Amino acid sequence: MENFIFQNTTKLIFGKNTVKTIGKELSKHGIKKVLMVYGGGSVFKNGVFDTISKSLIENNIKYTELSNIKANPVISKVYEGIELFRKENADAVLAVGGGSVIDTSKAIAAGLGYNGDVWDLYENKAAVKTEIPVFTVLTISATGSEMNGNSVITNEKKKWSVSSPQLFPKFSIVDPSVQFSLPLNQSVNGAVDTMSHVFELYFDRTEENEVMDEYSEGLIRTVMKNIQIVIKNPEDYNARANLALCATLALNNSNGMGRQGGDWATHNLEHSLSAFYDIAHGAGLAIMFPAWMKYVYRENIKKWVRFSEKIFGVNYGSEEEKAIKGIELLKEFYKKTGAPVSLREVGIPEEDLEKLSENALLRGPFGNMKKLDKDDVLKIYKIAY
Amino acid sequence: MENFIFQNTTKLIFGKNTVKTIGKELSKHGIKKVLMVYGGGSVFKNGVFDTISKSLIENNIKYTELSNIKANPVISKVYEGIELFRKENADAVLAVGGGSVIDTSKAIAAGLGYNGDVWDLYENKAAVKTEIPVFTVLTISATGSEMNGNSVITNEKKKWSVSSPQLFPKFSIVDPSVQFSLPLNQSVNGAVDTMSHVFELYFDRTEENEVMDEYSEGLIRTVMKNIQIVIKNPEDYNARANLALCATLALNNSNGMGRQGGDWATHNLEHSLSAFYDIAHGAGLAIMFPAWMKYVYRENIKKWVRFSEKIFGVNYGSEEEKAIKGIELLKEFYKKTGAPVSLREVGIPEEDLEKLSENALLRGPFGNMKKLDKDDVLKIYKIAY
Repeated sequence: MENFIFQNTTKLIFGKNTVKTIGKELSKHGIKKVLMVYGGGSVFKNGVFDTISKSLIENNIKYTELSNIKANPVISKVYEGIELFRKENADAVLAVGGGSVIDTSKAIAAGLGYNGDVWDLYENKAAVKTEIPVFTVLTISATGSEMNGNSVITNEKKKWSVSSPQLFPKFSIVDPSVQFSLPLNQSVNGAVDTMSHVFELYFDRTEENEVMDEYSEGLIRTVMKNIQIVIKNPEDYNARANLALCATLALNNSNGMGRQGGDWATHNLEHSLSAFYDIAHGAGLAIMFPAWMKYVYRENIKKWVRFSEKIFGVNYGSEEEKAIKGIELLKEFYKKTGAPVSLREVGIPEEDLEKLSENALLRGPFGNMKKLDKDDVLKIYKIAY
Repeated sequence: MENFIFQNTTKLIFGKNTVKTIGKELSKHGIKKVLMVYGGGSVFKNGVFDTISKSLIENNIKYTELSNIKANPVISKVYEGIELFRKENADAVLAVGGGSVIDTSKAIAAGLGYNGDVWDLYENKAAVKTEIPVFTVLTISATGSEMNGNSVITNEKKKWSVSSPQLFPKFSIVDPSVQFSLPLNQSVNGAVDTMSHVFELYFDRTEENEVMDEYSEGLIRTVMKNIQIVIKNPEDYNARANLALCATLALNNSNGMGRQGGDWATHNLEHSLSAFYDIAHGAGLAIMFPAWMKYVYRENIKKWVRFSEKIFGVNYGSEEEKAIKGIELLKEFYKKTGAPVSLREVGIPEEDLEKLSENALLRGPFGNMKKLDKDDVLKIYKIAY
């Protein structure tokens, strides 16, 4: 097991009918006016906007709105948010939505504390330092952003991330029942995203971290079981709650303890996809993960053997056969949920693979299980094609 | 799944050679003088005292000492600590040891913020409110006190606990290698204690909390596997690290999310034992848990069936047979580790069972799986006899 430091200060308020506590909770922090950031119409359809607005008014908290945040959120909305926040003299950012909304909100908070272009922080030119608190009401479980300090923003074709303890939300409210009305593909993408976060941490070379391996395997099995229930019955509360909690735990650092920081190559490969095409992050990950695994599994075959055994109960064949079988079964599972499993089926032209590879490598070779250069990356995109 | 609120602010600094960072870490909090609380000679034998003392001096942090804290720590040492802290004008409590030392340190911090007898807090006569920070260097993994707000103190025959967010250590340093020199029975007791914390949370009636059930089962299997390695080779770092991390996770609230708060009847039954006899908490729990299970398993037989399947791979027989088999296998496992499994073998006289039952019920019936009254408690002690 590797040495590590863990701290996660976010207060997680989880369960049915918790959204209406927002005003009271913000009051505890002395908040008088928030910049409320949200996406499109879903917060009106699921009633979350009304519930929040009522609760804020009841608690004498003013709000101003930044709406229309899209998937793969862009830097221009961050600039807009920073300006609006200053103009309106708000004292906190309230994210109401999924990962894109939360990441935008964190970027706004980070930008408000930085005397320069907020994009510098994503370019690692300066460190995040901000006093502006972020609070969240989560409406789509997927990215885990509700309980970590990460923010991923797209600027032109660069989809880059920043991470800072200062960007942990002060609290996050997660009511799984507001996700009943999510479109099926968004629920599936969320589940894939969650599994992918676990994979990034799980597939490493750490010696004997049994407790984290067990934990990760439990998360993966739980997601696989419960997304199948949700596909059949989108209003199954316990299944939604399990998915929501797994999404939060998968990327709140709790399952990275004593590990090597994760691989993250596949996220890089995917970020390049969604920088160019209108493809959901989860969908891109469903395509890229099995391809990456096929390319690198021999780097630590025992881990993939374990994966096959513990996740799919594969108990026959050579190490090689077991490892391959697990990867195939994962791909089959994704297919069964309706997630895409090839670049071809989402309409990406084969001649773009070269361009995608170049983009993925803008910041040089990446990956821990195997350091990937241009040649490797192109090969993986070809496997994924 | 039940609604819940989770927040754990403790910074966990985990791994080899982390103890020597204590001075630097305390400096970040502006600490100038600590009350250093510890037990007996072990902190001298394992070199922890010297490492800490050197690091404090290097960072210009003064310290005054409260030593000789024993297992099942008593209120008199808490009073002594409060007085010493005040006299010496310390600004933080530094616990160096296991659960008893940390619980005493928390009690001192709590007492310093209370204008009256600190025991009132354990009697629920007042709420904890203190500004005094607690920091810890853990030397025995067992109670999980390094990452929660709980403190258990004994006053005469009352072994009672208090819990408050204010008592979370600001940080805890856990170096599993300092536990190489622990006596075998203390290592085993720590493992039993860890498993017991998981059991208290796991055996409930929460509907479909798959993610927490998986997590708990992973913790239990990890502890069972690694304590056996440590019994053979006390200096196996990875095994020690797995046990240490499981102990922390078992009672840092992370595995109680969406549950009903736990049962805690068995802890009550055990606290009564260690209030009267010089018996280690872990040893008492090894005796009491299988007995409690035998008495209550029919209240939620499906959970015990699952336990038998997931922990021991029992896959034959009726529900009743499976449940019973799991409990028997747990008892056999405890025996194999050298833990006691009956009150008789630790020398408790049978005629004392009545007295123990009365003591356990001082604050009325208890337990969630089954509310236990005097008659129930006596029956469980008899099963344990």
